[in-house]
Amino acid sequence: MDDLAIGVDIGGTKLAAGLVTADGQVRARTRRPTPAGDSAGIVDAAVDAVEDLCAREDVSALPVGVGAAGIIDREGIVRYAPNIPWTDEPLRATLEKRLGTAVTVDNDANAAAWGEYRCGAARDARDSMVMLTVGTGVGGGLVLAGRLVRGVGGLGAEFGHLIVSEGGPLCGCGNRGCLEAVASGTAIGRLAMGERVAGRIPDGSPLLGDLPLTGKSVTAAAVAGDRAAREILQDVGRWLGVGIASLVNALDPEIVVVGGGAMAAGDLLLTPARESAEARILGRGYRTMPAIVPAELADDAGLIGAALLALDG
Amino acid sequence: MDDLAIGVDIGGTKLAAGLVTADGQVRARTRRPTPAGDSAGIVDAAVDAVEDLCAREDVSALPVGVGAAGIIDREGIVRYAPNIPWTDEPLRATLEKRLGTAVTVDNDANAAAWGEYRCGAARDARDSMVMLTVGTGVGGGLVLAGRLVRGVGGLGAEFGHLIVSEGGPLCGCGNRGCLEAVASGTAIGRLAMGERVAGRIPDGSPLLGDLPLTGKSVTAAAVAGDRAAREILQDVGRWLGVGIASLVNALDPEIVVVGGGAMAAGDLLLTPARESAEARILGRGYRTMPAIVPAELADDAGLIGAALLALDG
Repeated sequence: MDDLAIGVDIGGTKLAAGLVTADGQVRARTRRPTPAGDSAGIVDAAVDAVEDLCAREDVSALPVGVGAAGIIDREGIVRYAPNIPWTDEPLRATLEKRLGTAVTVDNDANAAAWGEYRCGAARDARDSMVMLTVGTGVGGGLVLAGRLVRGVGGLGAEFGHLIVSEGGPLCGCGNRGCLEAVASGTAIGRLAMGERVAGRIPDGSPLLGDLPLTGKSVTAAAVAGDRAAREILQDVGRWLGVGIASLVNALDPEIVVVGGGAMAAGDLLLTPARESAEARILGRGYRTMPAIVPAELADDAGLIGAALLALDG
Repeated sequence: MDDLAIGVDIGGTKLAAGLVTADGQVRARTRRPTPAGDSAGIVDAAVDAVEDLCAREDVSALPVGVGAAGIIDREGIVRYAPNIPWTDEPLRATLEKRLGTAVTVDNDANAAAWGEYRCGAARDARDSMVMLTVGTGVGGGLVLAGRLVRGVGGLGAEFGHLIVSEGGPLCGCGNRGCLEAVASGTAIGRLAMGERVAGRIPDGSPLLGDLPLTGKSVTAAAVAGDRAAREILQDVGRWLGVGIASLVNALDPEIVVVGGGAMAAGDLLLTPARESAEARILGRGYRTMPAIVPAELADDAGLIGAALLALDG
């Protein structure tokens, strides 16, 4: 029994939970909508998901790990969440009381990174990994000396806000030139729209179809072979590589893992990212170049990682 | 006796050694020129400095810590050094054999960072610190979870090669827009020269005096009150703040320490750096903003840190 834990991934729209083994296998899972805008309802939904799994699988008193979007401090208090009405919510204490078991609460990107480190794309790394999650925004996770780097207040690994082009495109955070502003799903959509407005999209391209153009629609067009969409991904991949090079120069990790929705583009994004990063990484010839690889656990990374954090401490 | 160590700081022009207590006090010191271009001679000079101190202070068999410029791997092998003709030099093994005692070898910026963390500007930090050393170039040191982050191949904390202005000024590393290219002594001199060539330096400014204009000469002019020189430091300080913001967003440290020759400018550099960083750090209101402070150990940071690394392991 002590080799099992329950992982819970609280997203802005869905809440997923799974019964996870110590080697990261998901034995059972459950999923429900996140009751948006209802902070007590979200806690209820998490409790309900855990109790549902325990009843179905005939287990009890397992450690529970929770990954949630937001700024979460070392005590498991959600300082701020972008899509959930929580401010200074003592999520760990509340869930421990309700569930009567040990609960670990961490940022969702940290949980996903831990999942990839322990049993995903970085499982063979000795003790370090940089992970970038490229979706609507850019999140991150960092493992050094075999441990997650959470930062003094839970704000570690916000790699989307590395400044790579000071004075460049406006970022959602209010600054300019953040990695997220030039290498995210949002950036892909914005670049495509810019090309369209400038009249540079050739006739027949799906990028001349229905608006809005999003990271998802441009990526789909690129995967289907559209040349204009592929050039946009190449440009965004190049910027992603600039961010990766900065991180490698600062941290010298063994491996860089790239996940998130934008990785639906696969090598259309990753090949230019690799080329761009490798041209900018310091000390070629005197260093081990880190592999730059896609994440492997897809949507399960968060709940697997959360469960393993509950087991690994 | 087990509370003492000898620290050795091997620089491009001088080699300094000191007998250091566990709380970072330097009890005795010795210094000699680095025999430039003579790799065996440098080892002899280091051995001689240690033996000299041991004889003078009547101590023996103390642990020895060495800080040297260059890429140094986890085994104490100097993979590459910028000013010393070493390639794959097994410095730790050689010195252990010659001295008959345990030797620790680390990068000089790491040693300086450890000195500041243990008994300098960051001595009150619980377990994390970012240090930037702004001189001719920009070096760095990083402490997380109470330990130096050396990276998989000894290339961790090369913060001078964070890319903050992709496509910007050429850096010594061959890339463009590195922090070192816009926020170093070299950048100060280059900016001043640019202003002079453009005819924007007012009559009477020392920046219209003898060439070359260097980080040192421009800083001296600024400290003496020259307005044009102060504006240049303000611009460079602003860039330094961009790099600091990137590091804080990526690592969420407790404190940021800025050292190196450029800190002769003091607040002329640090005030704009703080303002610029604080405007760009993510999550104001939901985080502890790290203090951004000057280094305290000056030229002794390297030898103190090297000695403490030998004691701390």
